[in-house]
Amino acid sequence: MQHTISVLVNNKFGVLSRISGLFSGRGFNIESLNVAETNDAQVSRMTIVTRGDDAKIEQITKQLNKLVDVIKVIDLTEESFVDRELILVKMNAEPRVREEILRIVEIFRARVVDISPTTYTIEITGDESKIRGFLELLKPLGIKEIVRSGRIAMSRGKKSIH
Amino acid sequence: MQHTISVLVNNKFGVLSRISGLFSGRGFNIESLNVAETNDAQVSRMTIVTRGDDAKIEQITKQLNKLVDVIKVIDLTEESFVDRELILVKMNAEPRVREEILRIVEIFRARVVDISPTTYTIEITGDESKIRGFLELLKPLGIKEIVRSGRIAMSRGKKSIH
Repeated sequence: MQHTISVLVNNKFGVLSRISGLFSGRGFNIESLNVAETNDAQVSRMTIVTRGDDAKIEQITKQLNKLVDVIKVIDLTEESFVDRELILVKMNAEPRVREEILRIVEIFRARVVDISPTTYTIEITGDESKIRGFLELLKPLGIKEIVRSGRIAMSRGKKSIH
Repeated sequence: MQHTISVLVNNKFGVLSRISGLFSGRGFNIESLNVAETNDAQVSRMTIVTRGDDAKIEQITKQLNKLVDVIKVIDLTEESFVDRELILVKMNAEPRVREEILRIVEIFRARVVDISPTTYTIEITGDESKIRGFLELLKPLGIKEIVRSGRIAMSRGKKSIH
């Protein structure tokens, strides 16, 4: 099963390396990971998406909790959460496909953020299924390059991580 | 100086840990990092934002290039690039601040993506200065929780990383 894990850490050297090492050392592949500061510059927050046996993931989150500089670990999968991802896609924009690309951009409320005589660069945000649908439609038209932020996520409602 | 580095890697165990270890081992703090798959499931792409002496960053990118499973490293800072970040912010939405929050959301073309009797969760994308401006306005109104994707970036125009 896919798990979405939030980790609050002290913003110090080596924390990311230790955390990612803990996953790879146990044979867990990380589907996506991102880390950036929070509104407290001393504290960073990570969102990790991984897949595996529930009991093993629980072991990993327990071990994460024991690491120096790890403040809090929450497996959001156990509750209701909002998740979003941001991607940039550079498309080959030959004249014959331009209209179709722009049609898809409009339907998905994406945005063209850069343009050259032969390319369009598009920004889109959404949950996993929206992003997947968008990319499936663009694929046959000629994707040149893609960069994804990986998922970010937060509990629904008033619950929050401190 | 701040550097924005794109790294294409084989999607294998341990690559992330080795790369982040290379930065922390040399005393470079990572301001943000994200990694997710590309349109080729075998290949992942990272965007790393770090800050430091240009010559030392160049050394690091050279060492990154030598790592097993690293396909390509580009320091985008040397060229013109598009950059974006996605964030989710949960606000304390007491009645007296709701109108002001929604006004800011509208001006920045952000979106309320979840609501509870006491909170609003807001999604916004933008470059660094837009995100900074948005957060500065929200801060005095009561930020409860924040999660940031970290920057993703891509060369402008037709140039692309393969």
